[in-house]
Amino acid sequence: MGTTVIRGGLVITAADETNADILIESGRVTALAARDSEVARRWAESADRVIDAAGKYVIPGGVDAHTHMELPFGGTSASDTFETGTRAAAWGGTTTIVDFAVQTVGESLRSGLDVWHAKADGQCAIDYAFHMILSDVNEDTLKEMDGLVDEGVTSFKLFMAYPGVFYSDDGKILRAMQRSAGNGGLIMMHAENGIAIDVLVEQALAAGRTDPRYHGEVRHALLEAEATHRAIQLARVAGAPLYVVHVSAMEAVAELAQARDMGLNVFGETCPQYLFLSTDNLAEPDFEGAKYVCSTPLRPKEHQAYLWRGLRTNDLQVVSTDHCPFCFKGQKELGLGDFSKIPNGLPGVENRMDLLHQAVVDGHISRRRWIEIACATPARMFGLYPRKGTIAPGADADIVIYDPGATQVMSAETHHMNVDYSAYEGRTVTGRVQTVLSRGEVVVDDRSYTGRAGHGRFTARETCQYLG
Amino acid sequence: MGTTVIRGGLVITAADETNADILIESGRVTALAARDSEVARRWAESADRVIDAAGKYVIPGGVDAHTHMELPFGGTSASDTFETGTRAAAWGGTTTIVDFAVQTVGESLRSGLDVWHAKADGQCAIDYAFHMILSDVNEDTLKEMDGLVDEGVTSFKLFMAYPGVFYSDDGKILRAMQRSAGNGGLIMMHAENGIAIDVLVEQALAAGRTDPRYHGEVRHALLEAEATHRAIQLARVAGAPLYVVHVSAMEAVAELAQARDMGLNVFGETCPQYLFLSTDNLAEPDFEGAKYVCSTPLRPKEHQAYLWRGLRTNDLQVVSTDHCPFCFKGQKELGLGDFSKIPNGLPGVENRMDLLHQAVVDGHISRRRWIEIACATPARMFGLYPRKGTIAPGADADIVIYDPGATQVMSAETHHMNVDYSAYEGRTVTGRVQTVLSRGEVVVDDRSYTGRAGHGRFTARETCQYLG
Amino acid sequence: MGTTVIRGGLVITAADETNADILIESGRVTALAARDSEVARRWAESADRVIDAAGKYVIPGGVDAHTHMELPFGGTSASDTFETGTRAAAWGGTTTIVDFAVQTVGESLRSGLDVWHAKADGQCAIDYAFHMILSDVNEDTLKEMDGLVDEGVTSFKLFMAYPGVFYSDDGKILRAMQRSAGNGGLIMMHAENGIAIDVLVEQALAAGRTDPRYHGEVRHALLEAEATHRAIQLARVAGAPLYVVHVSAMEAVAELAQARDMGLNVFGETCPQYLFLSTDNLAEPDFEGAKYVCSTPLRPKEHQAYLWRGLRTNDLQVVSTDHCPFCFKGQKELGLGDFSKIPNGLPGVENRMDLLHQAVVDGHISRRRWIEIACATPARMFGLYPRKGTIAPGADADIVIYDPGATQVMSAETHHMNVDYSAYEGRTVTGRVQTVLSRGEVVVDDRSYTGRAGHGRFTARETCQYLG
Amino acid sequence: MGTTVIRGGLVITAADETNADILIESGRVTALAARDSEVARRWAESADRVIDAAGKYVIPGGVDAHTHMELPFGGTSASDTFETGTRAAAWGGTTTIVDFAVQTVGESLRSGLDVWHAKADGQCAIDYAFHMILSDVNEDTLKEMDGLVDEGVTSFKLFMAYPGVFYSDDGKILRAMQRSAGNGGLIMMHAENGIAIDVLVEQALAAGRTDPRYHGEVRHALLEAEATHRAIQLARVAGAPLYVVHVSAMEAVAELAQARDMGLNVFGETCPQYLFLSTDNLAEPDFEGAKYVCSTPLRPKEHQAYLWRGLRTNDLQVVSTDHCPFCFKGQKELGLGDFSKIPNGLPGVENRMDLLHQAVVDGHISRRRWIEIACATPARMFGLYPRKGTIAPGADADIVIYDPGATQVMSAETHHMNVDYSAYEGRTVTGRVQTVLSRGEVVVDDRSYTGRAGHGRFTARETCQYLG
Repeated sequence: MGTTVIRGGLVITAADETNADILIESGRVTALAARDSEVARRWAESADRVIDAAGKYVIPGGVDAHTHMELPFGGTSASDTFETGTRAAAWGGTTTIVDFAVQTVGESLRSGLDVWHAKADGQCAIDYAFHMILSDVNEDTLKEMDGLVDEGVTSFKLFMAYPGVFYSDDGKILRAMQRSAGNGGLIMMHAENGIAIDVLVEQALAAGRTDPRYHGEVRHALLEAEATHRAIQLARVAGAPLYVVHVSAMEAVAELAQARDMGLNVFGETCPQYLFLSTDNLAEPDFEGAKYVCSTPLRPKEHQAYLWRGLRTNDLQVVSTDHCPFCFKGQKELGLGDFSKIPNGLPGVENRMDLLHQAVVDGHISRRRWIEIACATPARMFGLYPRKGTIAPGADADIVIYDPGATQVMSAETHHMNVDYSAYEGRTVTGRVQTVLSRGEVVVDDRSYTGRAGHGRFTARETCQYLG
Repeated sequence: MGTTVIRGGLVITAADETNADILIESGRVTALAARDSEVARRWAESADRVIDAAGKYVIPGGVDAHTHMELPFGGTSASDTFETGTRAAAWGGTTTIVDFAVQTVGESLRSGLDVWHAKADGQCAIDYAFHMILSDVNEDTLKEMDGLVDEGVTSFKLFMAYPGVFYSDDGKILRAMQRSAGNGGLIMMHAENGIAIDVLVEQALAAGRTDPRYHGEVRHALLEAEATHRAIQLARVAGAPLYVVHVSAMEAVAELAQARDMGLNVFGETCPQYLFLSTDNLAEPDFEGAKYVCSTPLRPKEHQAYLWRGLRTNDLQVVSTDHCPFCFKGQKELGLGDFSKIPNGLPGVENRMDLLHQAVVDGHISRRRWIEIACATPARMFGLYPRKGTIAPGADADIVIYDPGATQVMSAETHHMNVDYSAYEGRTVTGRVQTVLSRGEVVVDDRSYTGRAGHGRFTARETCQYLG
Repeated sequence: MGTTVIRGGLVITAADETNADILIESGRVTALAARDSEVARRWAESADRVIDAAGKYVIPGGVDAHTHMELPFGGTSASDTFETGTRAAAWGGTTTIVDFAVQTVGESLRSGLDVWHAKADGQCAIDYAFHMILSDVNEDTLKEMDGLVDEGVTSFKLFMAYPGVFYSDDGKILRAMQRSAGNGGLIMMHAENGIAIDVLVEQALAAGRTDPRYHGEVRHALLEAEATHRAIQLARVAGAPLYVVHVSAMEAVAELAQARDMGLNVFGETCPQYLFLSTDNLAEPDFEGAKYVCSTPLRPKEHQAYLWRGLRTNDLQVVSTDHCPFCFKGQKELGLGDFSKIPNGLPGVENRMDLLHQAVVDGHISRRRWIEIACATPARMFGLYPRKGTIAPGADADIVIYDPGATQVMSAETHHMNVDYSAYEGRTVTGRVQTVLSRGEVVVDDRSYTGRAGHGRFTARETCQYLG
Repeated sequence: MGTTVIRGGLVITAADETNADILIESGRVTALAARDSEVARRWAESADRVIDAAGKYVIPGGVDAHTHMELPFGGTSASDTFETGTRAAAWGGTTTIVDFAVQTVGESLRSGLDVWHAKADGQCAIDYAFHMILSDVNEDTLKEMDGLVDEGVTSFKLFMAYPGVFYSDDGKILRAMQRSAGNGGLIMMHAENGIAIDVLVEQALAAGRTDPRYHGEVRHALLEAEATHRAIQLARVAGAPLYVVHVSAMEAVAELAQARDMGLNVFGETCPQYLFLSTDNLAEPDFEGAKYVCSTPLRPKEHQAYLWRGLRTNDLQVVSTDHCPFCFKGQKELGLGDFSKIPNGLPGVENRMDLLHQAVVDGHISRRRWIEIACATPARMFGLYPRKGTIAPGADADIVIYDPGATQVMSAETHHMNVDYSAYEGRTVTGRVQTVLSRGEVVVDDRSYTGRAGHGRFTARETCQYLG
């Protein structure tokens, strides 16, 4: 692989917007030089490949810190494999995913992690890393956490929801937090009071309220806020940091804001579906609402303004997708007549960068904040920075040439995710990925896919870079 | 029983301070008349008994809404029977207690209530009522709640602490709250995250931290605040009111204040031990700290100012005792070498009115607020008003002649509770009960006990009078 | 004057609801006795007058702590004299007003007070007292404050609005607060940033926005909240209590709530117009909006819920009227073509008790809270309790027999205030004053006026009873 | 001027820490290349000058957004001229200052600005820009604001303190804010209630409290918080952003935090003196406290933790110096016997970068945050980015080689500011400026001064880059 130069674009990182050309060697960014400088001109002359980015944005590849490829859930599995899912990610301008390896109750973290390594190995179009889901906190698994941190699996997800499946009680949560306070791991929390929600689910079903929209009603916003508050307090007792995943309720944002005002190491993630969709979608007729069933659930529209505000005030730091697609036919339909049987999850890994660029166009966030919440902060949060998430000398050449003026219509007909519907079907957005490099290799070339399964590597991560 | 007139005192209620004489007939207050009025003079002339209250306060008998006579706990039982405990209450100016009947897990509320009726019947010196502890929330017991409300047991206590004993999970709590939202019952909550606390207990003991003071450390203030917040959120979801018992942490007061600012029907009780004692007592050497072991635990001294403020701002509404005495010898000593085995509880039913009068003297609260938090509000909160808690035409003649200028030294040597220590040993306070009437009958006469077991009657209660 | 007995009614005070008969002698309440008691029966037999209150409420006469009879304002004067205004008050069940004597800039408090005494003396149908408006804070007037406190004028109003008229700058406010911290006086604050508002007024008029509704826009809710916050901070610096008059903005309520959560002696008053009217009224066509011009201004409807909540949570303690009527013809019309020239003020002294009873019917407040905010608290706040504001032995017999079931239609055609319109024209309310006693004398007898100018006496006040 | 290469250092910006070499041409950063890359090696070979930064930090030159060179104040003038002050700044690693031009009351902004241009022109060692102090807001000066924005003076300071000198009332403030909302200017506010403070000053002096420490007492923390809140509310009414200068009170930080939680464009600056000094210094005997007299004043030590927290939570964004030195002899002494006559101000322009590096060493902030609050954010805030405040292709080569391991003792004996004392006399800090480049020119070369008066240029600024 020779040298590549990206020329003439506006380089946007979380920190800067620079008219600079980029020299890439051996899969890394070697240097940046001011556009039209003598140095830059010489690079272009001697480069093996020159990518013209005039009129385009040159941005770090997206880092999606929350995906679930091939996740077994509710008797079926997420429809994207690591192969199809990472290819779609590349199409959408995302060059790193952090997926969740799952511990099976009664087994070791190691065996769960091995299974996920096996699923991903040799399949991925882009680089990937793993979080570990702790389904069974006990003395053995607590000890295993230390080892996983050492081998680059530095974050651990716990669930306050899904009793009987992933659920951990507050004692287990506290123990895991205490352990992470010692080994540098970051606890990621699904914050919903699943015990209380299950009562409401049972009551709703008993009362004949079985449509998808009741999924949104029983998963009460206050029960998300409650669990968020509880997780924060437990983290304070443990002296540990906390990352709350897929925040959707304005009341939960308020809990995070309050914690952050106190200077606590508490972080929050939201997802495009909460920013762009609402309970109106859940209420779509003919069971179409099932397409939008995920947990935490979509909220009434008025919550969106609080999420955007949280992203601006940095009370929310990251936008990930929680990509976990299930086909409408055959999968979502498992919940016909009983919303509680609808597999939870939405496709989105391909849409995130574009939807957030639309948010720039709409004035919700600035260009730099777009890169911050979608690339730089997830990379820092999960110990990938500065290899991932920025464009700087020494960084991996994970770079997207983005056309800010192009328009596109989102649709299942054109997307590359392995799922039979789009959550954003028919939505027109401004901005489109044109070319994508992963470690210097062009994987999408002017909207042709040039990548390959197996290019993507497992990436061991440092611990969270917002601490200490 | 003929007519009694109380003459020459300053009648203090939650609302008023009046120079008035009181006419008592058939156990009730018939009338009040301005001191020195012709009407009052005539009453005194024709009365069968005239009690001279000149220079004294005439106040409603105290209502202690939180006592545990004969409570089985940790392999032993609270050392005061209904007979000894209510006699001590009378000595201390309290003329009504609301004790807690306990449901045994696996049995009905009814059978538990029957047991408590049997314990109290014919034993009490003063009137009494019952709350019901729900140890086992299920379809049957939920239905039973309605019946208990009808027969005057209108409040139900749940525990977020004590897993394996009284503990209810959030689903059970939610169900009970939903039921109470329908039947008018009031949910009383022991708000501590017992699941998390048990982890800390186990860790402390494993680390050799076995002294009583560790009882205070493991029951972390944030874990009280967390549970308080959670209970409030669950009550909001259920649309039910909530009464949080024995609030001791300033962070928990803050949760209550925030809820009340929103106009929620959320109420808070504290106890004299949290206002006058602290972790300094828990740290007393030679296992003396065990005397002060109760849950929620005593807190560091700086919490006291927040409790007093909460009482002034009405973010806390009631001061009860949580009277639950265990002798130091033989009972508290069960926890020698393991603080978790110390029976939880303090004596206090005899001390409450005096300690709160001392708070008046110290400037923490006004005289009327003294009566409000110790008599009127507990009576209203638990459906006893205006029979109990005030002095007004038609009210039960539960009246205390209180000498505001006398001083006394609190001591196990002189108190009447059946316990071998005083939590306030050696403390000098200003103010002393002189004479006590229960439904017109003099049970303490100028500091001689003239009452009798069996005078006190079970009192069916209305529902909470702060609602609707 | 012989003895009077009020028989058979439900006596409602801020504290109690009692079935009691009342014995009145020499203008005072001598005694209360349980209905149907032998005592009560004897009273009725021997009384000179028995008033039958069966089926009625017997309540303390209203205390309106904020009226402006005959106030000179904007080149005209409030249209009610002390004679007409106090008569209307009596009709409306109010038996005490506290009006505002005005200091003229450059003159003494004494001379201002003397003028107001002269206006009221011999004119009033009911008892009255005075606050003092400080228009000119200086060394002399600061000293005069002490003397006024001694003679029963124990509260002093300052204005952060109306530059060039009543306005005091923050230095003057601080000095007056410091003085009141010493002499026990209570500072009452008109909290609006008048300096900023005058800029907006000038800009609105310059832009041709001259209609009454612009009065509401330029007096921005944030400028009320700002001044409220500022007054609170100045009071903290001075170590003085604070009473904020006519709170109308939800943002100002929030400032009060925050201060009260801190335990500060900060109090807030609102008025019926803010609870029942809104900017919709200000926007009425044909200059009709001028009828509703007052300051602070009416707010958009959504503020009302926050005011009701504030009254329930006790973040607002008092409802007064700020009665300051100007006829539409000839007076309000002064502002045709220039909203800033519309005299500020509404009639209301006759409507307050009824509107607040309607709030009971509507479920906003309880019956006892009705009496608390309209009678007891204003009496305590301004040092009139227990003579005024309650029904208890020794209290002045200022008593209203109130028919809770009657309905009435509010109208200028039937009201007794000297003003040509009603702010509540055509509004039907449930509840009506039937009979009114002022110091034992019947001034409204079953809806006939039997009072007389000159019955009402100036009433020297103690200092605020919520302090110390 | 040929090419310069800085080699071997750790380049730290607000966003990144990169092992990179820097190529400088024509006063600008042309390119960055990964250390030890072939590109970087070639640069070094062909460079006219190579600066060895091995083991050192390479950071953007500091941007001090708040200095007062030669400011006339209280009958004297700040003792640093633009020549001496900017030289000292360079010594301390600061390569840009934004000083305050002062409008004289009754004169135009233009004439004030011209005076300041004349003072600075040809004198400065480093680049400089101007804010404009509005002493006299009127129709003419409001119009002039637009023109100043166009010529690069894009921020305007107003004072809520100093009545009779710089003070603007709330109406003037509102007008200026409204204007800035239109023209993009940023209002900077000295937020202290000067009207109230002057009352306290007068009272203190009258009571014989004349020592420097009373300066801290009369300028009450609540009066800073109050003014901060008021400025925020006025800015909301005007729809304008706000930058609050020299925040020192924890209560003021709380106001900013609350505003920022709402998503308002409200920004806060603090200064090293508030982070490192306290009222203990103001209380130093023998009038030594006068050295520490500045406004807002130093606060009790417990405020420091809240300021550090504010810097971490981004509720405070900028650390400037408010450099305004007065010699102890002859200048500070003007206030002997009357603290109100002590010229307000401290020296600090030379110490800021070092003190904040010490904060990194002490764990208060991270390295990147150091650069953010001292370089990047002030540059962005005042429209200088990315020319100033970062190291990126195209940026001005304002670069500091910083030795993180060196120690130094701060002292008037060794500092370069023209003032006879150091506020940090004797304090040992870790970290020291070694070499400083201003637009590529070495002005401090391995701790020898090589700069010259007149090198520094006036720098026209864009508007605030945090808006829109």
